[in-house]
This record gives sequence, C-alpha cells and structure tokens, in this order.
Amino acid sequence: MMNQQIDVLGMTCGHCVAAVTKELLLLNGVTRVEVDLTSGRVDLTTTRELSADELAAAVDEAGYSVA
Amino acid sequence: MMNQQIDVLGMTCGHCVAAVTKELLLLNGVTRVEVDLTSGRVDLTTTRELSADELAAAVDEAGYSVA
Repeated sequence: MMNQQIDVLGMTCGHCVAAVTKELLLLNGVTRVEVDLTSGRVDLTTTRELSADELAAAVDEAGYSVA
Repeated sequence: MMNQQIDVLGMTCGHCVAAVTKELLLLNGVTRVEVDLTSGRVDLTTTRELSADELAAAVDEAGYSVA
C-alpha cells in the first residue's frame, strides 16, 4: 500500500466530493479516497503508483481538474 | 398551468441544481423546474398551487432550504 496526493480544483459541495471519489475509486489500484473539500486536497491509498495522467483523467471524468 | 417561485439557499454547483430539480419534479403537479444557480431562484410550472410547506419539504429532502 502507498499514499498519493492530488489537489483538485472546483469542488464546492458534498456532491462534488462524491463525484470525484467515485471516479478515483474506479481506477485500478485505488483502495481508499479521502477528500478535504475546503482545501481540495485528495489523499489516496493505492496498491501501485498511479501516474499523474491517470489521476487527472479520472478527475476530469468527474468534471473537475487537478491543480 | 401556473408559475410559482421559491428561493433556495445553499446550492453551489450543478449537482445541487440537479438534486433540487429532481426532488421538486417528484411533487404531484410540478411539470417544469428551472433553477438559477447564482441567485438561488427556482421557477416552477405547476398544474395546481403547491403550498409553501410542500415545496420546502421537497427542497429539504434534497438537502437544502428555502429562504
């Protein structure tokens, strides 16, 4: 297990958090997602190192962007 | 057909708009819901006059409140 962090822009409410969390959990290797809505910081627990591109694509799919 | 307006507090994004719209459309007599996210103003087209309590209950169900 390892931890990765990303900063997500544009989340404003719990629905946004849920949308981002859902997309990130669909990625192979992501086992836990914790979002701090105020800061936009997203902490992930993963079984492998995910690339910045993979993470950004999932965040984009949810309708947001990585800082 | 008639029009009714309410002001909803706390909506911050499109997910919020969708949640409020969905709950209001479940009310008997509501045929159209248009939400202005910036102002919080919600314009409804209805086949009967809905009470303030009915509308407030639906908005509350979505997780928001009427001003």
